[in-house]
Amino acid sequence: MPEGPIRAPGSGSAAGLLREIASTGIDPVRGGYSRPVFSTAEQDLRQWFAGAASARGLEVTTDRNGTIWAWWNPRGHPLEGSVVTGSHLDSVPGGGQFDGPLGVASALAAVDHLVTRGTTPRRALAIAVFGEEEGSRFGVACLGSRLMAGAIDPDRARNLRDQQGDTFADVCAASGVDPDRLGRDDEALRRIGAFVELHVEQGRSLIDVGEPVAVGSSILGHGRWKLTVSGQGNHAGTTLMADRRDPMVAAARTIVAIRDGAAAQKGARATVGRVAPVPGGTNVIASRVDLWLDVRHPDDAATAALVEDLHARARVIAAEEGCTASLSEESYSGTVHFSSPLRQRLSAVLPHAPVLETGAGHDAGVLAPHVPTAMLFVRNPTGVSHSPEEYVEDEDAERGAVALADCLEALLVSDGG
Amino acid sequence: MPEGPIRAPGSGSAAGLLREIASTGIDPVRGGYSRPVFSTAEQDLRQWFAGAASARGLEVTTDRNGTIWAWWNPRGHPLEGSVVTGSHLDSVPGGGQFDGPLGVASALAAVDHLVTRGTTPRRALAIAVFGEEEGSRFGVACLGSRLMAGAIDPDRARNLRDQQGDTFADVCAASGVDPDRLGRDDEALRRIGAFVELHVEQGRSLIDVGEPVAVGSSILGHGRWKLTVSGQGNHAGTTLMADRRDPMVAAARTIVAIRDGAAAQKGARATVGRVAPVPGGTNVIASRVDLWLDVRHPDDAATAALVEDLHARARVIAAEEGCTASLSEESYSGTVHFSSPLRQRLSAVLPHAPVLETGAGHDAGVLAPHVPTAMLFVRNPTGVSHSPEEYVEDEDAERGAVALADCLEALLVSDGG
Repeated sequence: MPEGPIRAPGSGSAAGLLREIASTGIDPVRGGYSRPVFSTAEQDLRQWFAGAASARGLEVTTDRNGTIWAWWNPRGHPLEGSVVTGSHLDSVPGGGQFDGPLGVASALAAVDHLVTRGTTPRRALAIAVFGEEEGSRFGVACLGSRLMAGAIDPDRARNLRDQQGDTFADVCAASGVDPDRLGRDDEALRRIGAFVELHVEQGRSLIDVGEPVAVGSSILGHGRWKLTVSGQGNHAGTTLMADRRDPMVAAARTIVAIRDGAAAQKGARATVGRVAPVPGGTNVIASRVDLWLDVRHPDDAATAALVEDLHARARVIAAEEGCTASLSEESYSGTVHFSSPLRQRLSAVLPHAPVLETGAGHDAGVLAPHVPTAMLFVRNPTGVSHSPEEYVEDEDAERGAVALADCLEALLVSDGG
Repeated sequence: MPEGPIRAPGSGSAAGLLREIASTGIDPVRGGYSRPVFSTAEQDLRQWFAGAASARGLEVTTDRNGTIWAWWNPRGHPLEGSVVTGSHLDSVPGGGQFDGPLGVASALAAVDHLVTRGTTPRRALAIAVFGEEEGSRFGVACLGSRLMAGAIDPDRARNLRDQQGDTFADVCAASGVDPDRLGRDDEALRRIGAFVELHVEQGRSLIDVGEPVAVGSSILGHGRWKLTVSGQGNHAGTTLMADRRDPMVAAARTIVAIRDGAAAQKGARATVGRVAPVPGGTNVIASRVDLWLDVRHPDDAATAALVEDLHARARVIAAEEGCTASLSEESYSGTVHFSSPLRQRLSAVLPHAPVLETGAGHDAGVLAPHVPTAMLFVRNPTGVSHSPEEYVEDEDAERGAVALADCLEALLVSDGG
């Protein structure tokens, strides 16, 4: 066993760290992991991270938006303009083991590498762990980074509700985060001189080119909309087919129209992954069906036009079924291009790494308009994500952690800029 | 205040009794009432019933299938061949106030009328309250009466699970019903000489003919099937439209095909009121979608043929979307014709009451193959059921209770047969 606060060099590999949390938040019903923000599982992961960071001598704090910061600052540099890496620990329902935690574990492993190498940092390094990146509990993705960046009104955030009807404010308060202090945190933003997020790849590009690590170039514009289709709730047995105003049928036709509309537009992706009929009884014609629409396209104007088109189709279909349809935006992030100079510095450190865009949203995308931001992606042999099939080989996890350490080292020892 | 165990005659009207439970099980999210079997709300209603029956001097017991019996037997007749009335207290999610409780409250009010009239019964009378009539918690409608009648294997019943994953056996045990003793109860069946269930009408027939009460003739054959559509879970942003095997799209196309298939067949009704995507995240292409299919038709062979046709359509659609579909029956009840002699006796007592068939399932339908069974329906001015809009005017509730008292009295004072 190592003595003192710094772990023995090499004691933690990214894959080994992930194995420490492999039993936390397993979902026996859906398969995979369900780790919604501030659930018992995600709280356990936060505790695990704080313990692992403290064991490395990092100083751990939680800021007023619930983001955890673990500081490696052996030379006592001022915190402004630090190098920051990190990701998130929350998951989609029934998600994989790597989306989020791989970036956090790789950050811890990268610190081990820097210590082993005897790196002398010329600025402070922090690992940041953001909350509700997936938006799987309160509906708004990247909620923690949005709050810090002022990209969501704190009042709106406080009033977001989970499926149990609890508000984000209530859940924050129960988790030790003062809901009255949520919101833009300029001091925290000023501490970030550069942000590098490592993430499992959520597609097949690295498999195709045969490389373990890529550098990110951009994030596809994406948003979420809630579509509510309202009809006439009634008894499934006593109501003749001709007398129905069934919002489930209208919603079903709309789901098909959404797929067809997106398939007809190059570069567009539109998904309905969540549907909630009200009341939801087997022998009850629903009175209302809520469905959530995820739309992405590289061109923000094309996304807006596609959503408007899908909304118009939904209204026509609903009217044909004697129902009504209304759409409301829950979140939107335009296409983000990461900092060009920072990306070029990472590419110089990792000359073999291809440069990839991604269709997935990340906290790095929310921070990009405010601070120089970059991403690394690690090969996923299944190409599948947001699913238990998401995977990273141990060797690739280690290659990713080493690549992250190389990038962080380059940033930490440089004069800045 | 009345003295002794018998309430003052006329102290309880059906509408007044329903007002006593008007605040129990209100569903603030869906609207209406959610009173699933053995929930806190339904347990509160059971306690209320036991109290109201005891206050009338009725002897209250719960049998081994969780059915409550309240006996009015002032002359100490043997219980075999008794006259039994009753209904249920559980509701669909977000249901109305009358489906079930109206029959229970009217039975209590009818006893008050018989006492007021000084009726001298020549046999015992019981009010029975069955559990899980709606099947809204464990998926099988009329579960309590099915168990008593031996119409479901007790092992299958014990292993039914609610949405929290709790088994019916566990929930029974926690509610004081020994799960090992569930199953066919011949002694209970022998006690029923005739069963008369009063129920709110779940359609518009009584509005159209301008009568407050009808006599039931038959129950449409009906069943529930679970359709599972399986595809490939993946990330909503990184998976191109062309690369998807999205079970939500296949399920949506199937829902439309189900509606179209039923609409094309005279007398058929097919409904999808409950859909559960797995994992159900907004930014996740589902890996699986479960949906529940409710199909009804007067001709059992036509129902079977329609379900087979819908299953075939679902398989074709699923294959077109790169998915698979499989259907399993959860429950089925063939078309039931109530006892002709008993119906004629009720029509003789209520000469103005029209004779109606119903598309809704009832415990009376499950009991009909075993004991002489009849139903009364009370006018519903909205014609809507399984919805907060379901309604009964106070005057009609009282007319229903009086009609029930008249029928019960005729059966109680006759020589039998």
